[in-house]
Amino acid sequence: MPELRYNSATREWVIISTERAKRPEDFALNPCAISGDARDKCPFCPGHEDKSPKEIYALRDPGTQPSTPGWQVRVVPNAFPALASEGAPTRSKTKAGFVKMNGVGEHEVIIESPEHDQVIATMELAQVEKVMLTYKERFIALSNDPRIESIILFKNHGRGAGTSLSHPHSQLVALPVIPRSMHERLEIGQEHYDEFGSCLYCDLIEMEKAEGERIVTQNEKFIAFVPFASRMPFEMWVLPKNHSSGFEEITDQECRDLAGIMKDVLGKLYRAVNNPDFNYAVYSSPCGQRELAHYHWNIKIFPRVSNPAGFEVGSGLTINSVVPEMAAQYLRDAK
Amino acid sequence: MPELRYNSATREWVIISTERAKRPEDFALNPCAISGDARDKCPFCPGHEDKSPKEIYALRDPGTQPSTPGWQVRVVPNAFPALASEGAPTRSKTKAGFVKMNGVGEHEVIIESPEHDQVIATMELAQVEKVMLTYKERFIALSNDPRIESIILFKNHGRGAGTSLSHPHSQLVALPVIPRSMHERLEIGQEHYDEFGSCLYCDLIEMEKAEGERIVTQNEKFIAFVPFASRMPFEMWVLPKNHSSGFEEITDQECRDLAGIMKDVLGKLYRAVNNPDFNYAVYSSPCGQRELAHYHWNIKIFPRVSNPAGFEVGSGLTINSVVPEMAAQYLRDAK
Repeated sequence: MPELRYNSATREWVIISTERAKRPEDFALNPCAISGDARDKCPFCPGHEDKSPKEIYALRDPGTQPSTPGWQVRVVPNAFPALASEGAPTRSKTKAGFVKMNGVGEHEVIIESPEHDQVIATMELAQVEKVMLTYKERFIALSNDPRIESIILFKNHGRGAGTSLSHPHSQLVALPVIPRSMHERLEIGQEHYDEFGSCLYCDLIEMEKAEGERIVTQNEKFIAFVPFASRMPFEMWVLPKNHSSGFEEITDQECRDLAGIMKDVLGKLYRAVNNPDFNYAVYSSPCGQRELAHYHWNIKIFPRVSNPAGFEVGSGLTINSVVPEMAAQYLRDAK
Repeated sequence: MPELRYNSATREWVIISTERAKRPEDFALNPCAISGDARDKCPFCPGHEDKSPKEIYALRDPGTQPSTPGWQVRVVPNAFPALASEGAPTRSKTKAGFVKMNGVGEHEVIIESPEHDQVIATMELAQVEKVMLTYKERFIALSNDPRIESIILFKNHGRGAGTSLSHPHSQLVALPVIPRSMHERLEIGQEHYDEFGSCLYCDLIEMEKAEGERIVTQNEKFIAFVPFASRMPFEMWVLPKNHSSGFEEITDQECRDLAGIMKDVLGKLYRAVNNPDFNYAVYSSPCGQRELAHYHWNIKIFPRVSNPAGFEVGSGLTINSVVPEMAAQYLRDAK
């Protein structure tokens, strides 16, 4: 019989198709491949720095100049930004009372390596660490902009996940609003904290440890598991073991461990499901708040192996055709 | 400058890309076409009634037998149901306290016409009316099942929207839970009702009428508009003008007008955007509740002309590349 499972962190039900359960080889029949993306035209390759807007930040060799080669990780404005850098986030109303505001914010691209063909799964650990340290630096810098209320850091891997450029990169959108989904996570976290006196996510980690079968991997500072009520096949959540609500509070030591676990889990996904398209995003507390006892930052990885249809659109529920315990087993076994 | 707009019914922000605004011809370069779907193998064509599970309901010619030809609209169980018809929706906990329940519910297919190649946009109005009357009958029948808490009625049109069968059909999933998204709509509606003494959706209709420019079409009983803060290009909301919270309360006269407006707006979408893939869903109040003053049923139509990526996954916000007023104009102009 199919099973409904409840995710206490999102308060959403998920339908787990236990009977027509699929195996990894049923997915990713078309592994992520972005062709026609020649290096000589790649705007992110070294030597092509003039093809992107002016460099915002870089980790680069001593003595090299901004917007020239010599960098290991490089941050530039998105050439087609979703939001405008200049201006004030002024709100106004239409004649009948609809609320709108200027689309002010930042939209940055984090170029993760000078190497065109690398992905986090295949990079040197030291390079992944530089990517995580850059994430941290951008979070800190943008958190200090009083116009910015929240930061969405995300990665699109593969065409089905929304990118057409294969050169490894992440993106960051700094918003002048707090998304409703974040308000909800904070409210759910607050209610749990009030009722139980503990962080919902810290409790989830303990529950996952107690049952064990959905844990994919862990190291000193981080744990990765397939959540009990995963919305989609091979979904993974990565959480710091030490409670923290804001990603910008991450220490350099934690960046090293985060690099290790991200390389590990993305490598397992790459091997277990034949390099599928995926998105991941950092879910951090809104900017300008002190550390919160009731929220816990995390990274969620969503492989794009199934397509939401009318049922998902109408209900918000999803139908997951891989039992989470089996997904975790497949991922653990992918050496 | 891009614009952020707030949807008061969902409490979500949307980014409207005013500067790189797209035109209808930028979308649907691959119009919905489901090939390889030969009539001789179609499980929904008349004469093939034995290819689907036993008929649940049909509008059929007098004297014809169930599961034989002679029907105009036919309802059968989904051959690959997401939920099991038999059993009780018992909840239980895992060792560590995660909540799950038996996946009990109904999953039905509504075959909208005996004609393999019709779509609602091209059907006779009388046939669309039969489809709407069938929707109503199934809502009423399933609402009376005490195990069922909510009904999700939806349509997948085209491969990109989740179907591989071209024979026109809708689906219905009857759930033993109320989705969180519905809890939220009810809560938002209740708060509006408490604060302003009126239905949020009735007020939205008045606001859209006052501004006018996003209305696509209307008839005596229904109105269709592109919402001010549309999540995606050419999104449309269809609402009854008379307040009602439960779709099952629709009158036969209203079914006729609903058929008229659905045929009209889906025809406009077909012509304006070159027959794109789309989903629609009926958003009705939970089962077994009396008529609610603070909720208003509606149908939302979501063309699948853009693909959510990491930003949408991470924030819940979307970036809409067609200004809603322009989308409404394109749709109105599609004769």
